Amino acid sequence: MITIDAKFQSAAYPVYIGENLLHDHILLNEFIHGEQILIVTNTTVAKLYLEEFKNIFHRSQVESLVLPDGESYKNLDTLKIIFDALAKHNHHRDTTLIALGGGVIGDMTGFAAACYHRGVAFIQIPTTLLAQVDSSIGGKTAVNHPCGKNLIGAFYQPKAVIADISVLSTLPDREFRAGLAEIIKAALICDAHFFSWLEKHMSDVLSRKADALTTAITKAIEIKRNIVARDERENGERALLNLGHTFGHAIEHCLGYGTLLHGEAVAIGVSMAAALSKTLDWITDTEQARIDALLTQTGLPNHLPPEIKCDKLLAAMQGDKKIANKKLRLVLLKSIGDAVITDSIPDNMLINLITHHSDHGSD
Amino acid sequence: MITIDAKFQSAAYPVYIGENLLHDHILLNEFIHGEQILIVTNTTVAKLYLEEFKNIFHRSQVESLVLPDGESYKNLDTLKIIFDALAKHNHHRDTTLIALGGGVIGDMTGFAAACYHRGVAFIQIPTTLLAQVDSSIGGKTAVNHPCGKNLIGAFYQPKAVIADISVLSTLPDREFRAGLAEIIKAALICDAHFFSWLEKHMSDVLSRKADALTTAITKAIEIKRNIVARDERENGERALLNLGHTFGHAIEHCLGYGTLLHGEAVAIGVSMAAALSKTLDWITDTEQARIDALLTQTGLPNHLPPEIKCDKLLAAMQGDKKIANKKLRLVLLKSIGDAVITDSIPDNMLINLITHHSDHGSD
Repeated sequence: MITIDAKFQSAAYPVYIGENLLHDHILLNEFIHGEQILIVTNTTVAKLYLEEFKNIFHRSQVESLVLPDGESYKNLDTLKIIFDALAKHNHHRDTTLIALGGGVIGDMTGFAAACYHRGVAFIQIPTTLLAQVDSSIGGKTAVNHPCGKNLIGAFYQPKAVIADISVLSTLPDREFRAGLAEIIKAALICDAHFFSWLEKHMSDVLSRKADALTTAITKAIEIKRNIVARDERENGERALLNLGHTFGHAIEHCLGYGTLLHGEAVAIGVSMAAALSKTLDWITDTEQARIDALLTQTGLPNHLPPEIKCDKLLAAMQGDKKIANKKLRLVLLKSIGDAVITDSIPDNMLINLITHHSDHGSD
Repeated sequence: MITIDAKFQSAAYPVYIGENLLHDHILLNEFIHGEQILIVTNTTVAKLYLEEFKNIFHRSQVESLVLPDGESYKNLDTLKIIFDALAKHNHHRDTTLIALGGGVIGDMTGFAAACYHRGVAFIQIPTTLLAQVDSSIGGKTAVNHPCGKNLIGAFYQPKAVIADISVLSTLPDREFRAGLAEIIKAALICDAHFFSWLEKHMSDVLSRKADALTTAITKAIEIKRNIVARDERENGERALLNLGHTFGHAIEHCLGYGTLLHGEAVAIGVSMAAALSKTLDWITDTEQARIDALLTQTGLPNHLPPEIKCDKLLAAMQGDKKIANKKLRLVLLKSIGDAVITDSIPDNMLINLITHHSDHGSD
């Protein structure tokens, strides 16, 4: 088991990465200080793990709440279901919420924990690769609003993150690859050496070999931890983690959430950011080609689906919440391993990019 | 104009107390840093002040949202109306929310600001006495849940609190007196000198003389500021501010919210806390008599309405969220100006107190 210390301004806690952690009685009980527990999970994860998992906790009140699975349920209505479960069973200020699931479960459970009694303890147990390397780390919690993704939420840190890589064995291939998009993104932002490592070991990672997987996950978590430690509230540097995301969110918005997986949309966004960086002569042809090759090797898309209209995508990007004072901000690359934030990309350059990055344009 | 510096762990900001501050262009514009403003108020306050108030802000997007008036609207459904107004009109991370109203408006607007984009700026402009001396100070924001008051919320500090005592002239007498309950409570917790001052000057305060009112409000705010500065997240000392509130919340719960004003329920709770403190021989007969006399002079109730049943009140108190590990905690008095937290009051003593503190029991 590997332990990463997450030390942020608002809280410090451990992130554990290892095999069979979901069965580790001692580890799991270490972070529960009261007598009440609410495990929040979804139908998919509950079927696989909930019954055994519940029995690990020897407390007077261990409850579970099984929510429907999917991004479309990440909203205020589902959040209210969590509040109702807590209030109805008289959970007190010293209760502990456990998020057992992917990013949707983690984001909603964390936000519920942030608000219930103005803040109760919670533990992140991410069960997807994307949640393990990205959404469970750094304390961003939220639900979606019809007008925007993650529009309503809180910065709220868990008491611990427990990433059991054994549960990834049941993860569908497409979801697994989508999680790898965030790992590639992490490497691109600030670690050229890790990017090279991924190029070399992607086949081992793809066949889910424990060693390669652990290395990739650990490295991605460390990168995110380091950035968040310097800018927890996203006043500056943390926005680098949005590499590929302004494009990605707009793509998801245009297609309707659920058509592409989040990681797939991010992969296309990363490829678009690389193309734009090349247009600006910030990265070389070779660098751009290496990025697209790694995405392709990983089995991720790197072109816009043909049904996406340029004007719709641009409009969705303008509405993206990463705009400060209504100027569009993008994360681009100065090289592999060196991302920067810019707000000076002219509209015509974006239109050109979108046109040439669609499956149409590249014919 | 008086300025109190509120310096808490999470934020530092000024609290202004004075006359005609609602018309002070320079002061009001000082704390708006973006181009977007949403003023949140209620039907009662909007009729009196909104039109003129809106025109004070010279920004490109000044909007207002008028909510129904009353504690029964302080819930997740109304919170959603605020989120919808913000999202629909594309408010960005640099927007500013202005809470123009009493405690309900302040608590809901503050909580909406805490969550929208994971935290945007907000300003408290409390228009009731209770909000000026209590709810707008210290950063507690929340909405109610059917199972409990303020069950869902956040600790979130405003950029400024602007308490215009001129607006109190339009406050109904009963609401004004209810606000005084929190001022008396503040004195009882930690300032015997201020309690004596209130005994001497209550008639001036009741006739709303500007000087006396300013002194009383300023002193109450300073007391709360000092306690919150030492314990922002209510891990200990801040619970002292709940003097009278465990009883008070239970009374409100039993009668149905809206029957008594919050301050009236707190006044009864303060009187009960004093009676219990006397039973324990922590305060003298004279002290108890002085407390009840001041409540009576202020026109506040100090006995339980006869329709309240002892077992229902006890049950409501057990469900109150100030319980740690399910033990009932109460704030009692060691003397006037010296409150303490205790969790060792036996049930039979509480039953005795409730029986003897009702309008029946005192017959």
